[in-house]
Amino acid sequence: MSPIISLTTDFGNQDGFVGVMKGVIWRIAPDAHIADITHEIPPQNVRLGGYALWRTVPFFPPESVHIAVIDPGVGTQRRPIGLRIGNQYFIVPDNGLITPILQDGEQSGQVIEIVHLTNTKYWLSNVSQTFHGRDIFAPAGAHLAVGVPLTELGDPINDPIRIEFSQPNKTALGWEAHITIIDVFGNLTTDLPAKHLENLKEVTLRLGKHIIDGLVHSYGHKNPGDLVALVDSENFIEIGRVNGSAASLTGAKIGDVVEVIFHE
Amino acid sequence: MSPIISLTTDFGNQDGFVGVMKGVIWRIAPDAHIADITHEIPPQNVRLGGYALWRTVPFFPPESVHIAVIDPGVGTQRRPIGLRIGNQYFIVPDNGLITPILQDGEQSGQVIEIVHLTNTKYWLSNVSQTFHGRDIFAPAGAHLAVGVPLTELGDPINDPIRIEFSQPNKTALGWEAHITIIDVFGNLTTDLPAKHLENLKEVTLRLGKHIIDGLVHSYGHKNPGDLVALVDSENFIEIGRVNGSAASLTGAKIGDVVEVIFHE
Amino acid sequence: MSPIISLTTDFGNQDGFVGVMKGVIWRIAPDAHIADITHEIPPQNVRLGGYALWRTVPFFPPESVHIAVIDPGVGTQRRPIGLRIGNQYFIVPDNGLITPILQDGEQSGQVIEIVHLTNTKYWLSNVSQTFHGRDIFAPAGAHLAVGVPLTELGDPINDPIRIEFSQPNKTALGWEAHITIIDVFGNLTTDLPAKHLENLKEVTLRLGKHIIDGLVHSYGHKNPGDLVALVDSENFIEIGRVNGSAASLTGAKIGDVVEVIFHE
Repeated sequence: MSPIISLTTDFGNQDGFVGVMKGVIWRIAPDAHIADITHEIPPQNVRLGGYALWRTVPFFPPESVHIAVIDPGVGTQRRPIGLRIGNQYFIVPDNGLITPILQDGEQSGQVIEIVHLTNTKYWLSNVSQTFHGRDIFAPAGAHLAVGVPLTELGDPINDPIRIEFSQPNKTALGWEAHITIIDVFGNLTTDLPAKHLENLKEVTLRLGKHIIDGLVHSYGHKNPGDLVALVDSENFIEIGRVNGSAASLTGAKIGDVVEVIFHE
Repeated sequence: MSPIISLTTDFGNQDGFVGVMKGVIWRIAPDAHIADITHEIPPQNVRLGGYALWRTVPFFPPESVHIAVIDPGVGTQRRPIGLRIGNQYFIVPDNGLITPILQDGEQSGQVIEIVHLTNTKYWLSNVSQTFHGRDIFAPAGAHLAVGVPLTELGDPINDPIRIEFSQPNKTALGWEAHITIIDVFGNLTTDLPAKHLENLKEVTLRLGKHIIDGLVHSYGHKNPGDLVALVDSENFIEIGRVNGSAASLTGAKIGDVVEVIFHE
Repeated sequence: MSPIISLTTDFGNQDGFVGVMKGVIWRIAPDAHIADITHEIPPQNVRLGGYALWRTVPFFPPESVHIAVIDPGVGTQRRPIGLRIGNQYFIVPDNGLITPILQDGEQSGQVIEIVHLTNTKYWLSNVSQTFHGRDIFAPAGAHLAVGVPLTELGDPINDPIRIEFSQPNKTALGWEAHITIIDVFGNLTTDLPAKHLENLKEVTLRLGKHIIDGLVHSYGHKNPGDLVALVDSENFIEIGRVNGSAASLTGAKIGDVVEVIFHE
């Protein structure tokens, strides 16, 4: 079976940075199938890179290798790391990008192994100071994908850097949620898991001056132009707009508060 | 031989929606080669999605599976459908996107089979209300690609939704054509098949205030900056600009009329 | 082992032009792995296409086939050509795009073979006047990838078109370099090879009104917002900005002069 590798970066699709990583991978893993998750993470936005990977990984085949390079610290002392979390593998800079996947893995009791990538045998022979995606992460990930054990790639560590990802706050009336992701349709994902809303009808959401009563089943259940609240595809509460962009209508930004109020 | 799957969506390349579909596909069809046709269809523009697929499919190997998800009705009663048209297979929402390919297939007498995708055995076990691309279309297409018969995916139907695609009108002087596609170079494709113009020299095109006399062989046969008319790569009449963008120069929009006038 | 093919174009990712080339390739080379280098070369910018390919090729496996189509002369008398340069193969329009790779190959004494693609047996049977990427370049490249000898694709030539690529000038005080590439991060690559700067500390760079003293190891070695000079991942001198865009800060454009001054 062909190895499966995914790539998540802030490299854009303009300059060939991603293409060259694929060349490096196929030198080592000539049969690998490679999926681009996204290369349009805003430059150096580790947090959005972390979200993109976290939403994607649960749908990949066992033993997939996910290479994610949002790496403002390239060329400094920040560590390149490799992780096994359950049956998925990761090659990332140690800057907190992996935090949400790691937390989910810990909470569900999955097997977790982490190494500091130190074995230069699995890197390109010349390592630049500015493009570790090509010189360290791609070759290390490709070797992992063809069966080199994770522990062979470096030394075990247990202190990966973690960063805070947004969490909802319980309030007297319900929840204070926050916008975490704004997608290409202008849908506004929040950090509030849908499981916290037991009765989907008896709730009101407030985002700035906009009030939304109740949750709908999907976008098509209101009229074009209406703001709606619903459960998104990762089971979080989302605000969307029927046949339109909630982001454009509301001017909302990542981090903005969404008040969720339960009724009697 | 590896199964071939194509993907056409309005999901953009920013959010990882396409990457996650590939993960789902490879769980089921681990050796599939997957081609991105485009993910930059303007949100919910079923018509442009239909054109993109229609231009692409004739060049794919027999038995390819084309998954196209421009799906404003996700989560409503709109049907997910699977089609065989000649030797190509399709997994799409039943919203008219497939119309031009279906019409061509019917006109050329190809074998056509259509099913309403109802067999949940070939979907993901949890189906969200907002992302059927991941939960229904991708897995159904992957199963089809590895040999599950189309008829196994659901119940036969013969009433797929059809939508009107632009057609040229015969006039006293020639044809009234319409702009159908504006590509990244700013070329303006029309709905007028080149076969309607027998003598390429003796014709004048008018688009707004712009007059173009005669058709050229290719872009390089006039001077930089000139507007030219020519036969495009799908054998329709197109207006382009040498080393430039006809769209920027003319301000033309999709649906605008191009008058085509034959000379004595 | 699966054939490896790379694609570099100015076709964008919106219209399906690249997807259709993949369909054509897989009809001929059903097991080919295809890497997109970039499809966002500015329309008809042969020079930037040449740079993108030149930066990428050295990292690909031996016997890879690189199809690059930035082709303002499509449909005119410009020749489609195929090249072997060392252990890499190329299918390109004869417009100078291949110049930097060809020069490097010549300077390092690699085996070089060039043919004018004339054997229509290896093209699609219908060739349009506007889309040779689909009708000539993709099928010729796919045949090459599955083992058709280069010499079978056409007639040997030794006069490929060459265009000037930017070169640095020696000055009394050091070098006059020029900006060659501006990447998605706003980093400014120059045409000055790093090997010309022996002592990285004792140098000053001037770009317009901006003065940069000394070179740093990587972006993270100065403070956020600082302009820095460093050695880029292809071993050329580059100007970047820590956690920001040097292009936005300086307003620099491709071709702008960077003065490099050595100290006593």
